[in-house]
Amino acid sequence: AHTFDPTEHSHRRRNPLTGQWVLVSPHRSKRPWQGKQEEASDDALPSHDPGCYLCAGNTRVSGDVNPAYTGTYVFTNDHAALLPQVPDAPASSDPLFTAASARGTSRVICFSPDHARTLPELPLAAIEGVIETWCSQSAELGRDHAWVQVFENKGAIMGCSQPHPHGQIWATGHLPNEAATEHREQIAYRAEHGRAMLLDYVEREAASGERTVVQTAHWLAVVPYWATWPFETLLLPRFPVQRLPQLSADQRSDLAVALKALTSRYDNLFRCSFPYSMGWHGAPFDVHGDLGDDAQAWQLHAHFYPPLLRSATVRKFMVGFEMLAEAQRDLTPEQAAAQLRAVSDRHHKA
Amino acid sequence: AHTFDPTEHSHRRRNPLTGQWVLVSPHRSKRPWQGKQEEASDDALPSHDPGCYLCAGNTRVSGDVNPAYTGTYVFTNDHAALLPQVPDAPASSDPLFTAASARGTSRVICFSPDHARTLPELPLAAIEGVIETWCSQSAELGRDHAWVQVFENKGAIMGCSQPHPHGQIWATGHLPNEAATEHREQIAYRAEHGRAMLLDYVEREAASGERTVVQTAHWLAVVPYWATWPFETLLLPRFPVQRLPQLSADQRSDLAVALKALTSRYDNLFRCSFPYSMGWHGAPFDVHGDLGDDAQAWQLHAHFYPPLLRSATVRKFMVGFEMLAEAQRDLTPEQAAAQLRAVSDRHHKA
Ligand SMILES: O=P(O)(O)O[C@H]1O[C@H](CO)[C@@H](O)[C@H](O)[C@H]1O
Ligand SMILES: O=P(O)(O)O[C@H]1O[C@H](CO)[C@@H](O)[C@H](O)[C@H]1O
Repeated sequence: AHTFDPTEHSHRRRNPLTGQWVLVSPHRSKRPWQGKQEEASDDALPSHDPGCYLCAGNTRVSGDVNPAYTGTYVFTNDHAALLPQVPDAPASSDPLFTAASARGTSRVICFSPDHARTLPELPLAAIEGVIETWCSQSAELGRDHAWVQVFENKGAIMGCSQPHPHGQIWATGHLPNEAATEHREQIAYRAEHGRAMLLDYVEREAASGERTVVQTAHWLAVVPYWATWPFETLLLPRFPVQRLPQLSADQRSDLAVALKALTSRYDNLFRCSFPYSMGWHGAPFDVHGDLGDDAQAWQLHAHFYPPLLRSATVRKFMVGFEMLAEAQRDLTPEQAAAQLRAVSDRHHKA
Repeated sequence: AHTFDPTEHSHRRRNPLTGQWVLVSPHRSKRPWQGKQEEASDDALPSHDPGCYLCAGNTRVSGDVNPAYTGTYVFTNDHAALLPQVPDAPASSDPLFTAASARGTSRVICFSPDHARTLPELPLAAIEGVIETWCSQSAELGRDHAWVQVFENKGAIMGCSQPHPHGQIWATGHLPNEAATEHREQIAYRAEHGRAMLLDYVEREAASGERTVVQTAHWLAVVPYWATWPFETLLLPRFPVQRLPQLSADQRSDLAVALKALTSRYDNLFRCSFPYSMGWHGAPFDVHGDLGDDAQAWQLHAHFYPPLLRSATVRKFMVGFEMLAEAQRDLTPEQAAAQLRAVSDRHHKA
């Protein structure tokens, strides 16, 4: 009772990518749940829905008609949050009222013409197609945007307004908050330790195995030591690489294997289509030619932030204490990783 | 078309309390909504529910019996995320695996015995009672906790697992992330400008009125210039004060007036029980005697973070881009404030 036990005793862990802490309260897993029950929507969908604005051949709200696409299909969001042409905001030196124009673009990526199949249910070749698209879009948009945010909101609970499997890309001229924070922390780590932070980290995690969820020749998915969401994972390359377009053919096809295994484990955990937001972070694109060797501090990685906690219908809420003070979790990252390892990496519907 | 218009053009605004930016995309308000519809639960509740573990006279899961309370009622959370006794976590100098013990306590505050009445529906005297409890609890817990987080999660959508109107207090030995960030930014502002940041801010907002929602003799509620949630507000004292217990009797009773008006406007906006997380931030308590005059950089304030966007059933999701890059909002803070001013400050059920 007088020895510290991370599965019994409240503690905080520090996220070295952001410098933020998370409160871990493992004994809280024991409390009964009386709160909101989410709808677990696992309705069978048709593979083509004439009312879906993402399906091939259908007309979108803009009046544009989707082509009869067979792989991925990318188009500019009809209600983009970011647009390329914005006049300059008036300059202000007032620290209490500071604004700046924001320029960029928002695109949608349909993962495949199949309205009914999410990432883990697609064949490996189709997942490779999605990866190709992530890489080529990043290369293209990186020519004139410092930050290219590739992401997917999966599930209605994660604000996804459309069941047709798709992701998004929002590219910006500026470095957004999270990007700027990870940039700063990785540069500081490299200045102190002489290596990229996440290269050190992936080696230590591969050696320990305690938080490993999926391991392939080139990739490792772990519940990071500092995870905030119950089943959060960090997908890491086991080789130095700064950005998506740099991945070799081998590394891409092995990534498809890792992604299929990880998202299948997610779906198998509570036997539902596991909701999450996921996205890629890599070195900013050097649009102003002033990045120097700071890119070397970066490692490409993907974050998966899934909200479910105990079942398909009970989620974690990041609310009062979390919004006002700091993120809090109930089970330890090691316990979450063990649960994800305990289910098959073959999808339950396969 | 070539002049910058904040109601038309995407821009970013900087939050001086945190140093973080928010992306404002006002043209996005025009997109059709096809996403998740929340349940608008505005069921009539009984004023006493025999199955409620917060109602007077009922037995809780711990076996404890609630007294026949008539005002507020405070007890230690039966499933507290924070406990006073935790052994020291082993020291680690590894920057990738840093942990520390977390000590503290979690309490629940029932706002009144009435199971059915939320804050705006309580008489002013009862709201004054809630404020008294916030102040006395902060004073008591501040004797041995550096941070006392008073907050309320309101509504099932905000993770509130219990409809009986109640708040919480989580007290910690450490400064949580958000507290540490606001501490740093307010100290830096005072070092540069010689005054408390939020004292400067409240004067400018009172003079402008553009973002004002509620104004009383001593208090001002605004949609802050840097709001992230659609109808987020910041409730500010119009006089220098660092912490809840310092409020005078006058300032407390005027606060009840401001709170009732603000939460009534919220409920009136979409004619529903408006969900939110809210909480108080004030100077850390000087438990180690090393705070010096840094407390002078602080102004007490309350944040309200409500998720609804367009109606009682359509919320804003802070998901993919927001989690991975930065917060994004559709309507401007000035537009949100105008909507909240356009409804009555008298509750629609009154
Ligand atoms: O303590 P409660 O009301 O059961 O729990 C709620 O508030 C807590 C503090 O914000 C959160 O950690 C929980 O996720 C939420 O469900
Ligand atoms: O663009 P969508 O899918 O309509 O919208 C969704 O993702 C966006 C990017 O994360 C969020 O800003 C929205 O709140 C969310 O509903």
